[in-house]
Amino acid sequence: MRMSQLFVRTLRDAPADAEVPSHQLLVRAGYVRRVAPGIYTWLPLGLKVLGKVEAIVREEMAAIGGQELRFPALLPREPYEATNRWTEYGPNLFRLKDRRGTDMLLGPTHEEMFALTVKDLYSSYKDLPVILYQIQTKYRDEARPRAGILRGREFVMKDAYSFDVTDEGLERSYQAHRDAYIRVFDRLGFDYVVVQADSGAMGGSASEEFLVVSPTGEDTFVRSPGGYAANVEAVTTVAPEPVPFDGLPDAHAEQTPDTPTIETLVDHLNEQFPRDDRPWTAADTLKNVLVQLRHPDGSVEPLAIGVPGDREVDTKRLEAQVSPADVEPFDEAAFAKHPGLVKGYIGPEVLGTENATGIRYLTDPRVVNGTRWVTGANVQGRHVIDLVAGRDFTSDGTIEAAEVRAGDPAPDGSGPLELARGMEMGHIFQLGRKYADALDLKVLDENGKLVTVTMGSYGIGVSRAVAAVVEGNYDELGIVWPKELAPFDVHVVVAGKDAALFEGADAIVADLEAAGFDVLHDDRPKMSPGVKFKDAELIGVPTIVVVGRGLVDGVVEVKDRATGEKRDIAVGDLVSELRR
Amino acid sequence: MRMSQLFVRTLRDAPADAEVPSHQLLVRAGYVRRVAPGIYTWLPLGLKVLGKVEAIVREEMAAIGGQELRFPALLPREPYEATNRWTEYGPNLFRLKDRRGTDMLLGPTHEEMFALTVKDLYSSYKDLPVILYQIQTKYRDEARPRAGILRGREFVMKDAYSFDVTDEGLERSYQAHRDAYIRVFDRLGFDYVVVQADSGAMGGSASEEFLVVSPTGEDTFVRSPGGYAANVEAVTTVAPEPVPFDGLPDAHAEQTPDTPTIETLVDHLNEQFPRDDRPWTAADTLKNVLVQLRHPDGSVEPLAIGVPGDREVDTKRLEAQVSPADVEPFDEAAFAKHPGLVKGYIGPEVLGTENATGIRYLTDPRVVNGTRWVTGANVQGRHVIDLVAGRDFTSDGTIEAAEVRAGDPAPDGSGPLELARGMEMGHIFQLGRKYADALDLKVLDENGKLVTVTMGSYGIGVSRAVAAVVEGNYDELGIVWPKELAPFDVHVVVAGKDAALFEGADAIVADLEAAGFDVLHDDRPKMSPGVKFKDAELIGVPTIVVVGRGLVDGVVEVKDRATGEKRDIAVGDLVSELRR
Repeated sequence: MRMSQLFVRTLRDAPADAEVPSHQLLVRAGYVRRVAPGIYTWLPLGLKVLGKVEAIVREEMAAIGGQELRFPALLPREPYEATNRWTEYGPNLFRLKDRRGTDMLLGPTHEEMFALTVKDLYSSYKDLPVILYQIQTKYRDEARPRAGILRGREFVMKDAYSFDVTDEGLERSYQAHRDAYIRVFDRLGFDYVVVQADSGAMGGSASEEFLVVSPTGEDTFVRSPGGYAANVEAVTTVAPEPVPFDGLPDAHAEQTPDTPTIETLVDHLNEQFPRDDRPWTAADTLKNVLVQLRHPDGSVEPLAIGVPGDREVDTKRLEAQVSPADVEPFDEAAFAKHPGLVKGYIGPEVLGTENATGIRYLTDPRVVNGTRWVTGANVQGRHVIDLVAGRDFTSDGTIEAAEVRAGDPAPDGSGPLELARGMEMGHIFQLGRKYADALDLKVLDENGKLVTVTMGSYGIGVSRAVAAVVEGNYDELGIVWPKELAPFDVHVVVAGKDAALFEGADAIVADLEAAGFDVLHDDRPKMSPGVKFKDAELIGVPTIVVVGRGLVDGVVEVKDRATGEKRDIAVGDLVSELRR
Repeated sequence: MRMSQLFVRTLRDAPADAEVPSHQLLVRAGYVRRVAPGIYTWLPLGLKVLGKVEAIVREEMAAIGGQELRFPALLPREPYEATNRWTEYGPNLFRLKDRRGTDMLLGPTHEEMFALTVKDLYSSYKDLPVILYQIQTKYRDEARPRAGILRGREFVMKDAYSFDVTDEGLERSYQAHRDAYIRVFDRLGFDYVVVQADSGAMGGSASEEFLVVSPTGEDTFVRSPGGYAANVEAVTTVAPEPVPFDGLPDAHAEQTPDTPTIETLVDHLNEQFPRDDRPWTAADTLKNVLVQLRHPDGSVEPLAIGVPGDREVDTKRLEAQVSPADVEPFDEAAFAKHPGLVKGYIGPEVLGTENATGIRYLTDPRVVNGTRWVTGANVQGRHVIDLVAGRDFTSDGTIEAAEVRAGDPAPDGSGPLELARGMEMGHIFQLGRKYADALDLKVLDENGKLVTVTMGSYGIGVSRAVAAVVEGNYDELGIVWPKELAPFDVHVVVAGKDAALFEGADAIVADLEAAGFDVLHDDRPKMSPGVKFKDAELIGVPTIVVVGRGLVDGVVEVKDRATGEKRDIAVGDLVSELRR
């Protein structure tokens, strides 16, 4: 491919909306172009890389016996109604009506369609297990499309589905996908972790996420020295042992004026009500946070969450817990409906379905029986001290909504957690029988009895992976593609104006192509070598061959894009050198 | 691939809605499955064939220097607003709103997006010409989706676009595509014609359609012994020479009671007003047909069309002429608005923008000056005879709306036309500067002056082609794939129950695969040979190898699916025999 012909234009500057490196570089180097928020065109360079990622995914899916098919993106409403996802997806789903007024959607993921097709074609346990997948365009109307193709509204995904009769079968299919994903992610050269995940809106019993470690990642995950890893939504809190009530002091309400924050409260406590053993800390206080849940049916429910005062409520953890409900602020109108709530001094006495406000009250798992708390007394300017959980108050249950912090213990005892950021690149789910139940997907078992099939679903963000590869492979000059994913094997740059150089380069390119190399040939006649070099660095083909001054001596310069290392190579040795 | 594992189920009966052979067979043999009207899933067998068609198209596009990229299917409204297609597409366009209420559409074809991207990347005549294409999923909300994947609402299309500075450049790009299409259609094994076409809603100066000849085709085309070929919408009428008015009789209105049809009118004329030279025929009458045009802006306009009474108005020809307006019947409400129209006796006297009704009046090209007509007198029970065009009445222009009939003369004088039916598989357009003007796509020419780019657009119905191949390649037993498109090269059928047969087949399949053949291996243990043979005939792999009784003597039966010819081949010779 000649650079003078290639449909590409490199840009000196990144687009204004591009914050992360992959977005900046893929646009600047001419791999993708924005059409609308979260919607991109793949230019020829980008489409080549996308094709290479797809090929790797296909190979590894074939290796576990996956069969490829392709569903439409435009789908009828009914199957998604049956599983309730038509409603649960909320505004993330692109909905439309056809000319007859029939409700349709653009598929965000295809569990329903695969399940119905297996139901259509298969009827016996002998037909199972089966693994089916597609590489296909998906649609999600993200509230905040960002980072170019990293989080788009139209994107390419590989979604696979397994169908088994038994739980053990599902376990095997799940493990096969997990292994295949490890091979895919290794081949893509990712620095990644496999973390326990929250199944969220998908439902099902177990799921893991494949996160590519990156400071620009949207997801926070934790890991311990002993090997525990989970996304932050899935981390469970290590609760202390309950404490016997015997000998615990009685609760007593006290004046605590001007203590609008936990910090001022703790200062006030240490000043006015000092402890004997140690100073009060924020962890001794119980902070009661109010939110409203908007359920998929439109109903709104107030919810109170009690967390130790040294921790914030983590919105993502809370959202994962209450999904498919959305979390909304507890606004003035909500306060107006509950005059029993004294802002800044809300305490457990009025919370819970059995108490004055009737507001459901869930507490952090650390609030075990016998723990003593300083918390609101439901009177302006008063807190109650030594309020004992299980003795003086109870909640309606626990919730994993408090933030996870570095140093928190891993739930499996494998040491203190560290926090890091990652990009979700894969997600595997043991869905179990949720979808099969909803869509009545049954087969006859060995005894001629109808049994419900158990399903797994397994996704890889294929277009997103292109961006993630760049996030891990760039420098100040541009992209540095790994060999297996580069749009070309070799980038030949003619540095000079002599016709002899251009002729020499033509011959060299012909030799390279005859030897099987895919070559990008920068033959632009009136472009300075400096501009050509900059383009080559930006585009990021792994090997750059400079045809310049040395050609009269039969020598070209070979530059390794990654290391910057340059060597002079005799033209006659070029093919064999590059083959090494 | 083992048949026991392949995700497929053949059906004995065709689905109730399947009328054409390709629809019936592709569903029965397990290539596609319906999801919604005009929306289909590609099962593994179908996806393999689709991939082979795509590969052929890619090769031939690459051969003319086409560069592949990929646009999104979900597109913003604005570019389509600029070219007026947002409105002109009418109900054929899938429109939707995103979560912010922004208008979007599912791309029916991408002229606007390609033009804008070229505008974005390129700025000089030196950058041109360029040929860009994509193989991508398209959406059209057809009023009558039919025939399975032959006319779907979601379908795969190859759409290419050329960008040139000069008209001669466009001509070259157009010719390059025309040649590439001929190679593609030859490789797909189609019996096809290239016909002159109406540019219709696309605009532009010249276009040709590639029609696959088929009795089930939706399109009618004509051809002459001398090589003229056109789709019926594009046929132009050979008009007679004008006749001098001198010596023509005067017009005279006559009583013609009870002549509601052309036939009764002609009978009445021959009885009451016989001609000297010959009997009256329907061709002597001028029939005035009323319709309403619904324009894209929603406005409705009445239109009168005058055609010789021996011809009907051809709806498709009329629609092509008035596009982007839609044709609607002239209903009672419309008649009520025009009391000057006497049903059954409407004549030119009241028609035309200058006359009583003010209704625009277009006549068939045969209605040249000096031709004499019998037509309505605008009075109940009366017709006027010897009404002379150009003397007694004029129209607002001509229209190509009358039906074309076998035997009509070709417009280029190449002989009488014959009519046939075909399926539109490709369409190439010289768009000219319509889109570039609307989107302000200009480049600097050699003199530093901004000039508007001229475009071509070139489509192939890729998914539709799969069905069209079947339409040309089937028999009473099932599909008969051409070698280049078959999902597998060889279909090995184990005919019998002996373990030795299955082991023998395993070895044979291993040999064939080692030799590079793609093999479908029917290893189903408890299936009768008869059922397996039926499935093999239905699925249509070109070569069927039966591993049966003969295996003890080292022989298998090789059957040619197309000819039905069977030969016994020694196992050791199988690979070399199949290679021939």
